[in-house]
Amino acid sequence: MIDRRGGAGTAVGLHRVLEPAGVLPQAALRLDPDPRIGPDEVRVRVERLNLDAASYRQLHTAHGGDPDAIRREVAGIIRERGKMHNPVTGSGGMLVGTVEEAGPDSPLGLKPGDRIATLVSLTLTPLRIEDGLARWDGRSEQVPCDGHAILFARSIAAVLPDDLPVPLALSVMDVCGAPALTHRVVGGLADPVVAVLGAAGKSGSLSLAAARRAGARRVIGLVPTAEEETRLAATGLADRVVRADARDPIAVAAALGEPADVTVVCVDVPGCEHGAILATAPGGTVVFFSMATSFSAAALGAEGLAADVTMLVGNGYVPGHADMALELLRSVPAVRELFTTRAEADPAG
Amino acid sequence: MIDRRGGAGTAVGLHRVLEPAGVLPQAALRLDPDPRIGPDEVRVRVERLNLDAASYRQLHTAHGGDPDAIRREVAGIIRERGKMHNPVTGSGGMLVGTVEEAGPDSPLGLKPGDRIATLVSLTLTPLRIEDGLARWDGRSEQVPCDGHAILFARSIAAVLPDDLPVPLALSVMDVCGAPALTHRVVGGLADPVVAVLGAAGKSGSLSLAAARRAGARRVIGLVPTAEEETRLAATGLADRVVRADARDPIAVAAALGEPADVTVVCVDVPGCEHGAILATAPGGTVVFFSMATSFSAAALGAEGLAADVTMLVGNGYVPGHADMALELLRSVPAVRELFTTRAEADPAG
Repeated sequence: MIDRRGGAGTAVGLHRVLEPAGVLPQAALRLDPDPRIGPDEVRVRVERLNLDAASYRQLHTAHGGDPDAIRREVAGIIRERGKMHNPVTGSGGMLVGTVEEAGPDSPLGLKPGDRIATLVSLTLTPLRIEDGLARWDGRSEQVPCDGHAILFARSIAAVLPDDLPVPLALSVMDVCGAPALTHRVVGGLADPVVAVLGAAGKSGSLSLAAARRAGARRVIGLVPTAEEETRLAATGLADRVVRADARDPIAVAAALGEPADVTVVCVDVPGCEHGAILATAPGGTVVFFSMATSFSAAALGAEGLAADVTMLVGNGYVPGHADMALELLRSVPAVRELFTTRAEADPAG
Repeated sequence: MIDRRGGAGTAVGLHRVLEPAGVLPQAALRLDPDPRIGPDEVRVRVERLNLDAASYRQLHTAHGGDPDAIRREVAGIIRERGKMHNPVTGSGGMLVGTVEEAGPDSPLGLKPGDRIATLVSLTLTPLRIEDGLARWDGRSEQVPCDGHAILFARSIAAVLPDDLPVPLALSVMDVCGAPALTHRVVGGLADPVVAVLGAAGKSGSLSLAAARRAGARRVIGLVPTAEEETRLAATGLADRVVRADARDPIAVAAALGEPADVTVVCVDVPGCEHGAILATAPGGTVVFFSMATSFSAAALGAEGLAADVTMLVGNGYVPGHADMALELLRSVPAVRELFTTRAEADPAG
């Protein structure tokens, strides 16, 4: 089975795992970022990392917002692990850069000079930083840097569109799995009511747009603050915008006011599983996109509430996901506006 | 929305949460096991706990198998938390007992004297132990004890069948979500190939039987040892039995030899996410039942492998799940044989 996908082990990067032996790169403690590539690998000159929002938030909290301490920790993680894999949140992010060298057997279709974004997590991407992150101020999840990264045969990378600013394209691609899977789930149902928790964020606003496009009868956006409520309501992306703390199950269900057939969780803080389950109609579906989701809290929560709901682990990969998300950004002005406003108001959002 | 389900908050036990305020009982640090019941509650005289397998295994490992230390820790957890909620694994188990008092507004249909098993997790069930677990030898997950527990309006409990020994019925009900959800997923597909990882265990063997009943074209059982391979092969529950360490993704895919349309994960050790994803055909489904599953490992693993697979959080509740599992046990002699053998060979299995 592995062979059909491009050579046992190396296609998924097993040969880059230093410790422990036998696990896939994402599960590894340390990867080997040696710049010499194998025949099915690609080496990328990195210009920017985009840290996962939950990861940046954790680092920010752990260091009391001290930007120097945050920068030192990120540099240290990359140096020690050979990848940007936050050991607390388990999450990474993505990167943008330019292809330096593509092995002759790489199936990714990339050539030197292509400016790309990786659509696989930094948690499995061999990475070496060569400038000590000196150009990063530590104040946002977007990390300008110089270094190199390695892509495997079974990776995903997208050539950056030339009609969009790079930071914008990058922040869209970073969350492009959410609208793609939302579209698939919603499109498989007849006129569902869709609730998005954390609806004013990046994955949230794209998911609202994707749900509407997929034929949702009604889309409801839940946000935590009055400021976000006003901002989201002004966009018209949701039929209704409601406010509640997503970690408070009773408040979430009360704010939504009606059971959702599909509930999409885009809130990047822990503890939102029970609210999502309680908000969902019997027979409905919860899609968890937040990396802060706890498997056992979801599984036991649904059982404990006697909730017959289907719960999906938000897979970051759906074929065509990057193109769909970029297309939503281009064609729905409100989405682009939210992304732009958000980038200005809260660089870590 | 809450009101329709039986009274805001109390139906799901909010009033029993001591710390922190506002979370549901499963997320709470401490519950109040006060024996005085509300009008929609039920008090049960507990005779036996059945600890979650992952929880017992963790306790066993942490204490080097010392049964006295294991017993002390379980008693301590229940005393401190007001529930049996392993803080490391996040999991609990279930209990069996006899209804002492049912409030007039309880919708569970129970009456004093009914001998029942709870089908919601111990992690959200207020519990007080009154005998210090003195009768438990600490050597198995089945814990004879005396004490009381509280059921909420929105709980699930099943009256024990009188044609099966209690420990057997209990150990079937403990995992009854797995065969029920497997049946639902497999039944929704046309002639799928189904792989069960951890197929010789309780949830694994029931899932094999459920997959076959739901119309699987071929069911493949994966086990870790030669002994389990022999035992499972002898039952005929699987069309093929293969052996591999479920934590080794390449080995899992190689052992199965063909991509599975549905992969059911019943292995109660961490690190099986990537093997399950790699074993699954594009467009296929992975159902995670193990409480040792890591959400981020699953989400990022699928993304990192560019795997277009649907990943389900194994919900412990599917309507009719207990009846279906008991019926499988009664009608498929091999399942009953495996349960019985397993109970004799490995009390913690």
